[in-house]
Amino acid sequence: MMTTHRSAVVLVSGGLDSATVLALARESGYELHALSFDYGQRHRHELDCAVRVAEAMGAVHRIITVDPAPFRGSALTDGGEVPMDRSEESMSESIPDTYVPARNMIMLAHAAGYAEGIGSRDLFIGVNAVDYSGYPDCRPAFIEAFEDLVNLATRSGVEGDSFRVHAPLLHLDKATIIRRGLALQVDYGLTSTCYAPGPGGAPCGRCDACQLRAKGFAEAGAVDPLVSAGA
Amino acid sequence: MMTTHRSAVVLVSGGLDSATVLALARESGYELHALSFDYGQRHRHELDCAVRVAEAMGAVHRIITVDPAPFRGSALTDGGEVPMDRSEESMSESIPDTYVPARNMIMLAHAAGYAEGIGSRDLFIGVNAVDYSGYPDCRPAFIEAFEDLVNLATRSGVEGDSFRVHAPLLHLDKATIIRRGLALQVDYGLTSTCYAPGPGGAPCGRCDACQLRAKGFAEAGAVDPLVSAGA
Repeated sequence: MMTTHRSAVVLVSGGLDSATVLALARESGYELHALSFDYGQRHRHELDCAVRVAEAMGAVHRIITVDPAPFRGSALTDGGEVPMDRSEESMSESIPDTYVPARNMIMLAHAAGYAEGIGSRDLFIGVNAVDYSGYPDCRPAFIEAFEDLVNLATRSGVEGDSFRVHAPLLHLDKATIIRRGLALQVDYGLTSTCYAPGPGGAPCGRCDACQLRAKGFAEAGAVDPLVSAGA
Repeated sequence: MMTTHRSAVVLVSGGLDSATVLALARESGYELHALSFDYGQRHRHELDCAVRVAEAMGAVHRIITVDPAPFRGSALTDGGEVPMDRSEESMSESIPDTYVPARNMIMLAHAAGYAEGIGSRDLFIGVNAVDYSGYPDCRPAFIEAFEDLVNLATRSGVEGDSFRVHAPLLHLDKATIIRRGLALQVDYGLTSTCYAPGPGGAPCGRCDACQLRAKGFAEAGAVDPLVSAGA
């Protein structure tokens, strides 16, 4: 393994994917700076999970508060219904109601500014275009365009000390993500995935995110510690 | 004049340039939504000016609070010295210390999310590549790359209801900007430009921004109401 001894800024939501990304970045030898965002999301339990995940990985962790004004119009921030019990086909049909306007762009822009301040040039984000391709800002074209932009928008970028945007899960299915994470000792019992968690963060088991997580664990031949704990 | 009857989201700092942009957008028939950002900037007087400028133009105005963490490393947010009495040559030599990491990217990303929520697809920003070309995020390549990104990052963009990023001052010199604004009855007495204002927001007259403003008014053959008021 090539150890780089540089620091990376990793977006950590408290979910399964970003916990895996944190482990992958650590495995690559980066010093970890985890960034989470408080944007008035309805499922606040996620932020508690982000704190625990970052701590378990030995990451410096910072929660950035973002004014929720730009995030109107999503079932995850407004009072709308989180869709339940959808078929796989229906999940991949169109951009879901859980889409949050410009979210990844705003978070990556903060990450870039933060990274420039601490001398990091490596941004990690756990977007995935396989299982849940509906979100526009989870697609490869978005990641590439953001990397281009950040290298035009920052002092470091234009001076040739380029940023890289790493999206190591982009082309992996959920089962592969889980297998990789388990191999790196990720404790998925610390994470939260559900769009509509119950008291204490208990997963509903019915929203798109819970369904994809359950399918991933099943295909990976592994037991989800969140589900076994609740059983 | 073609009146569009659509709304525009205009970044308004409280400075001369963005006040002019607001007037240009109004002249084009847009309903105005002005966005300002409180990112812990040292010259807080600017935000008071933004409020007054937006009000004078009849714009809906919102101040978005942004966590200052990503903005470290600038003379405008940290305790560093704002450069004074620099020659024009020295101003254009390199990226100035007043560069704020990733600022325009973060502000435009918020503007895009906000615009999507209110049904606007037109973002206006007062960047200028002529008088003060040092900032990377004031260059044409940055504006073009941001427009590309926002149309990949948002539901509206990928569904073909594209965003446009307007930077009407990009290629204008300061004198031309001032002439245009005066023709549109912009009250530059409401604006603030200085990087190191004194009590009550009095311009220092010596920082880069004050020098460029003075030169612009002189070349436009106009009197700066801020300076005449102080005299």
